Amino acid sequence: NVNPDLASERQTASFSVEKLTAWLDGGAEHTRLRRAVVEAIEGDPVFSRENQYFQSQNERYEAAVRKAVHIQKKMHEMGWTDNGPEYKYIYRALAGDVAFLLHRIFMRSISMLGSDKQIDKWIPLASQYQIIGSYAQTELGHGTYLQGLETTAVFDITAQEFILNTPKISAMKWWPGDMGRSATHTVVFAQLYVHGKCYGVHPFIVQIRSLQDHSLCPGITAGDIGPKMSFEHADNGFLMLQNVRVPRENMLNKFCEVQPDGNYVRWGSQKINYFTMTTVRISLLADEVVVPVMKACTIAIRYSAVRRQSKLKPGEQEAKILDYQTQQEKLLPQLAAAYAFHFINDYLQELFNKAYREIQRKNFDMLPELHAFSSGFKAMITQYCTSSVEICLRACGGHGYSLLSGLPSLYTKIVASCIYEGENTILLLQTARFLIKCFMAASTGQPVPPSVAYLAAVKPGKCPAKNKLHFLNPDIYTKAYQHMAARLVSSTAAKLQNLMQSGVKKHEAWNQCTVQLAQAAKAHCHYITVKNFAETVEKLKTQAGIQKIMKHLCDLFALHGIFSNGGAFLHDGYISGAQMDMVTASYLDLLPVIRKDAVPLVDAFDFTDKSLNSALGSYDGQVYQRLYEWAQRSPTNKQMSPAYERYLKPLLHNNLSKL
Amino acid sequence: NVNPDLASERQTASFSVEKLTAWLDGGAEHTRLRRAVVEAIEGDPVFSRENQYFQSQNERYEAAVRKAVHIQKKMHEMGWTDNGPEYKYIYRALAGDVAFLLHRIFMRSISMLGSDKQIDKWIPLASQYQIIGSYAQTELGHGTYLQGLETTAVFDITAQEFILNTPKISAMKWWPGDMGRSATHTVVFAQLYVHGKCYGVHPFIVQIRSLQDHSLCPGITAGDIGPKMSFEHADNGFLMLQNVRVPRENMLNKFCEVQPDGNYVRWGSQKINYFTMTTVRISLLADEVVVPVMKACTIAIRYSAVRRQSKLKPGEQEAKILDYQTQQEKLLPQLAAAYAFHFINDYLQELFNKAYREIQRKNFDMLPELHAFSSGFKAMITQYCTSSVEICLRACGGHGYSLLSGLPSLYTKIVASCIYEGENTILLLQTARFLIKCFMAASTGQPVPPSVAYLAAVKPGKCPAKNKLHFLNPDIYTKAYQHMAARLVSSTAAKLQNLMQSGVKKHEAWNQCTVQLAQAAKAHCHYITVKNFAETVEKLKTQAGIQKIMKHLCDLFALHGIFSNGGAFLHDGYISGAQMDMVTASYLDLLPVIRKDAVPLVDAFDFTDKSLNSALGSYDGQVYQRLYEWAQRSPTNKQMSPAYERYLKPLLHNNLSKL
Repeated sequence: NVNPDLASERQTASFSVEKLTAWLDGGAEHTRLRRAVVEAIEGDPVFSRENQYFQSQNERYEAAVRKAVHIQKKMHEMGWTDNGPEYKYIYRALAGDVAFLLHRIFMRSISMLGSDKQIDKWIPLASQYQIIGSYAQTELGHGTYLQGLETTAVFDITAQEFILNTPKISAMKWWPGDMGRSATHTVVFAQLYVHGKCYGVHPFIVQIRSLQDHSLCPGITAGDIGPKMSFEHADNGFLMLQNVRVPRENMLNKFCEVQPDGNYVRWGSQKINYFTMTTVRISLLADEVVVPVMKACTIAIRYSAVRRQSKLKPGEQEAKILDYQTQQEKLLPQLAAAYAFHFINDYLQELFNKAYREIQRKNFDMLPELHAFSSGFKAMITQYCTSSVEICLRACGGHGYSLLSGLPSLYTKIVASCIYEGENTILLLQTARFLIKCFMAASTGQPVPPSVAYLAAVKPGKCPAKNKLHFLNPDIYTKAYQHMAARLVSSTAAKLQNLMQSGVKKHEAWNQCTVQLAQAAKAHCHYITVKNFAETVEKLKTQAGIQKIMKHLCDLFALHGIFSNGGAFLHDGYISGAQMDMVTASYLDLLPVIRKDAVPLVDAFDFTDKSLNSALGSYDGQVYQRLYEWAQRSPTNKQMSPAYERYLKPLLHNNLSKL
Repeated sequence: NVNPDLASERQTASFSVEKLTAWLDGGAEHTRLRRAVVEAIEGDPVFSRENQYFQSQNERYEAAVRKAVHIQKKMHEMGWTDNGPEYKYIYRALAGDVAFLLHRIFMRSISMLGSDKQIDKWIPLASQYQIIGSYAQTELGHGTYLQGLETTAVFDITAQEFILNTPKISAMKWWPGDMGRSATHTVVFAQLYVHGKCYGVHPFIVQIRSLQDHSLCPGITAGDIGPKMSFEHADNGFLMLQNVRVPRENMLNKFCEVQPDGNYVRWGSQKINYFTMTTVRISLLADEVVVPVMKACTIAIRYSAVRRQSKLKPGEQEAKILDYQTQQEKLLPQLAAAYAFHFINDYLQELFNKAYREIQRKNFDMLPELHAFSSGFKAMITQYCTSSVEICLRACGGHGYSLLSGLPSLYTKIVASCIYEGENTILLLQTARFLIKCFMAASTGQPVPPSVAYLAAVKPGKCPAKNKLHFLNPDIYTKAYQHMAARLVSSTAAKLQNLMQSGVKKHEAWNQCTVQLAQAAKAHCHYITVKNFAETVEKLKTQAGIQKIMKHLCDLFALHGIFSNGGAFLHDGYISGAQMDMVTASYLDLLPVIRKDAVPLVDAFDFTDKSLNSALGSYDGQVYQRLYEWAQRSPTNKQMSPAYERYLKPLLHNNLSKL
């Protein structure tokens, strides 16, 4: 029983939704597999999210643990394995509401940083849930600046043990997921001391709870850090250590080791200890950042095609809000961004795979580029997508603000991605440091990675576009982005040098340039995203129908960026005021074009109603009926509130006689 | 026991915090009064918000009703009255967590739209809580577009009654506060039909619950709409009416009436029925929008002065994060905005008072300007401030994301202000319509209100600034804003005319210009805000110490706006690229200057710790200790979760033998 307003949107698609879905999935066989996983999981009542919006933090946690335990059983039943092709669809199908994600990071740390012996000992235990792990890095007083961590691990040569301590309150581990109530073990990052000398931060496996009765181990204080903006299901925890001893073998020692005599040996970069974070940064983008934007677009665009409000022409029926230019201008650029970041994600994954192969062979040459790209893109994409989800929420008016729309929980969750796994501003500055270094190198003719070679070719110039149609040429806008990014990098490099030449100390000069450095890093990532989108469209030649609409989305993504960051392009006259008017015209012209395919474009993301869990976004568009049905299930409607007997009745009855 | 890092910030203030507080309050006697109210309320345990972050929606509602009932008693005890000078501080002291706000709107509607007879009947009942009122305007299917409301009120001449009906599901009233569980009566907005003719939307007083036992009245279906992003304490409700009859006298009839014979009479504009909304739009700005930004700035700036992270110079102690340029650039413009909007609020209040006096005399001449300004500023300020709070939240990293920081609840609440009392985009377009009309009038020499006279004087030109110091001249930047706003209005007016001249129908042409029209409206409000800030500073001459720092804030607010909307100023060359570099330099130079006074500037807002309810923002800066103490009180730490016995224990014990 599909709302006719929504049904009609699907009759005029300029392309095959099924083909687009298959292409996004990487082939029709992947789509079939994904759907099978989703069906198996959504068909199982243990995984239901029906009451999610009505649950307390305690209830959400219990449900998340129940699901985490049950999914093991389910995987066994279904014949799915951790290394199987289905695996990557499971988490998405669970929609994130599941415990033991940090258990996985625990395992990944050991696999990546542990010796073969350590892997042989711990991975089987963890993968069979004989122990439950967490990853205890962040402290109350330190987050992204890992060198500042205050937890200590002192080597006791006599006992051949490390003694771990939380020397002060700010050193308390704070935030690690699965640690507040679930974990029995955790990887603790601590400053290693041997013979009184500090060797920096290293990872240690520490047991924190009894395997018998789950009570805290001696010397351990731990608990839950309380309510957060979202992640109610996760038991983010705190941890204090008082003279907790672990054997020498519990320091993860693939890349470095304390030998029995206290000799410290290292193979390769110490930075490799942070490598888990790099991998997490890239791997979180798809499920935690891009998928939420796709969901938010699906909800907001479907709703906007059934919500009618006010009249476009007097005397006519009220118009669908999706027919208003302002609504299109809110939503369609977010839709284009969802596609853009889906594609850049593939790009980053490829870069990562290449670098990882080298690292496995203890060649760390690609680490700087990988670090710079994973940092910058994590920052740029999470910030962009957080804003996208917020725009979708606000574009749905009051109903978007109801938890039942599904949008508030998408927002409150995605906003955390700007903070976790590295605070965005700090990450952008790390990217900027890499860009400045490459710019300097390129200026003096030294070799730089191909991805930043464009920095060498900065020169003044003018955009050659003569009319608005020229701005639909990917060469034209990609060059504009390239010029803009290179200009921001080079002008900030110049400011930095000027400051230092005028006697400002290097670190102070750096600080005085950081606002502009962060802008430059973002501009670089924006440029690469546009370029990659254009190249992806270019390669699509075999699928003409899809290519055409993807080209429109690519154009929209690019022109939206110029339209909304006009200053950066106008600044040196590369784009003139008259050209900016052409950009604006082309940009606004694209809106009604893409609007025609807007519903099919979100349908192609292929989310089930259960996965959206939204009264506004369901496939059938019966929004008012569903809002009403769901609201009636709210605990606030289950009985008359005790507030009536206690407060309202005395008040009203007190006065009743006078009426 | 103040954290020394915070204490030191207070020793170097360039002005007297106490004097600034008094000035912001409008005089030292107001400060005394406010503090007395706050002390009386915060000293009363009934009003405690200590457990707020741990409560369910049901618990929050009960607490809000308890407080609403208790505040009546308290007011009586303290000798405070609804018309007394203390009144405006009460709500602020309760920090919004109180029921029956819509009861007040109910009363305001009757006072404003009711006849003397109606006022005499209903106001005493309502003010003594013999009845509890709500304001039922918004429906499932219609919000800001009031003309589209679908609820009907048909006049039955025989019975001399109106028959109210909800003809379809989309006509169900949805969102009204206090209606889900509390209200006994409500003002229902419905399409009035007399003898089959529709006279548009009118307000009717309808009883919905029994005064005896609170059961729903015949023909009424009502309940709570369920969980929302915030406002957990409010029972936003739904309401369906089936042949509900009310006497003829229940239509509010100060400005229009259905006479016994069915004759419809109107005095003045029908739009006056929406006037309640105009008043609410202006009155919400202080407490719901500006105060939250002031609180968010207080929390984020105090935290940034005690949080130390990473090193500015190698070998030194870790730096306060407030010493990083990027952190200053995040927070200080929001601080400046909080001041800017505090001042513009006074400006709007004055405009309102003037218009209201006229309306009382049934002179509606100022309605268009008042409507345009209240709409545009409501939209611009709520959007700006929502973004400010979000920036503050994110600037506090992970700890900002904990509910215990107080920031998430400030954000989830303020974001609603972008939607309620008129969706922002629609409001901006109403302002734009007024601006375009005035621009057209001014162009042909007709008189326009002084506030928009500047639109007549648009001409090409160049900013005369020659160096960065020139941009610290309020004349220079105010003129730049004026030019920019006028250009956006005039160029959009030209686009509109061109479209129509090329044959595009008027309504379609309007739609094609709405993205730019909304920008123009925002630019106008931004300009007026800058101008008003500069004038406020100018008038401050007698208080030199305060004037100096206010001048810095005014400069920062203005230059931040140019820096971050560069395209609008560069577009026609009014500001050149070289001048934009001067703006940037002056803007960045201001940051360390204002940073020195940042803590005193937020101290001057004079929020108590209880009112901030933030583990990060307390006056003493003991952030880690407080986070830890508060987290321990979380219900998640009260007992071992049942999830252990149910799910974890079987899992872990299942495997224990193998260890």
